[in-house]
Amino acid sequence: MMDRPNPIATAVQSMVEHLRQSPEQEAQATFQANTQLVHGLRTEATIRQFSFIVDEPQTLGGTDQGPNPVELVLAALGTCQEIVYAAYAAALNIPLRAVRIRVRGTLDLRGLFNVAPVQAGLNEVTYHVDIDSPAEPTVIRQLVELVDQHCPVLDTLRRPVATTRAVYLNGDDLTS
Amino acid sequence: MMDRPNPIATAVQSMVEHLRQSPEQEAQATFQANTQLVHGLRTEATIRQFSFIVDEPQTLGGTDQGPNPVELVLAALGTCQEIVYAAYAAALNIPLRAVRIRVRGTLDLRGLFNVAPVQAGLNEVTYHVDIDSPAEPTVIRQLVELVDQHCPVLDTLRRPVATTRAVYLNGDDLTS
Repeated sequence: MMDRPNPIATAVQSMVEHLRQSPEQEAQATFQANTQLVHGLRTEATIRQFSFIVDEPQTLGGTDQGPNPVELVLAALGTCQEIVYAAYAAALNIPLRAVRIRVRGTLDLRGLFNVAPVQAGLNEVTYHVDIDSPAEPTVIRQLVELVDQHCPVLDTLRRPVATTRAVYLNGDDLTS
Repeated sequence: MMDRPNPIATAVQSMVEHLRQSPEQEAQATFQANTQLVHGLRTEATIRQFSFIVDEPQTLGGTDQGPNPVELVLAALGTCQEIVYAAYAAALNIPLRAVRIRVRGTLDLRGLFNVAPVQAGLNEVTYHVDIDSPAEPTVIRQLVELVDQHCPVLDTLRRPVATTRAVYLNGDDLTS
């Protein structure tokens, strides 16, 4: 592993150098998604060159042609964790044979359906990380802590995020 | 619209009746996603019968074969908003011709890359909602407030969510 440079480690090191030498402003990364209601509860999300369907199961009024938005949030947590595991392991030269994650989240449907004054969103999220590696348990424990300190989606879930809305009706600004 | 029953309105009404008559416990819905690291920073998410690739752009060390996890969170917000718009509009018999949403989020890459002690996740999220409807602006304004009070992903972002982790190394519990 030490002989040939790991391309992820190289990319991470190059990004770290870039961030260290650049003004703070350059570290601000903006991401974007465009979505549209297609038919019924079925929607389509477009992210750069990627498009996919997001829908609801029939029990919730949809046609079940894609995952639902809450499931997407859980998938975002699992994949973000794995990507940060891969990046930090590469940078620290820790061998990983596999990382698999199962994420579960619970919400109270009475919030969504306005049946009781409870929060509409996820109440708790549990994530079960399965790592396959020849590294020592103490090394993996340190890796786990590093990942959880630096995983963007985990941090996004744990903290309140400021949100700003603009609404247009038939092209006219409804916000004001 | 009043003559033939709207299937979404019927589904919403039926769920509302069900939730009103059931014990609180039955309103708790659990969602799940399974993810695995495939190669490099490329991952695969599986949600029930749906699978998709989640990756990073090349600038962040990936091979850009799918959206990244933070982009998925933004798509989850846009699609969740649209589904809640469709459901509440159907239940309240408010005609909607189209709903399109653009979601943007910003994060400081120095958090992810451990270059500065800043938060790794999204700092702010802005969402721009474009509604096409013959309904009066006052009606749409009420709809917008209802949607934002009951949108699960918006609520999830705005609030801190409790997270619980379990980690296994080669099948052995590392948590304890």
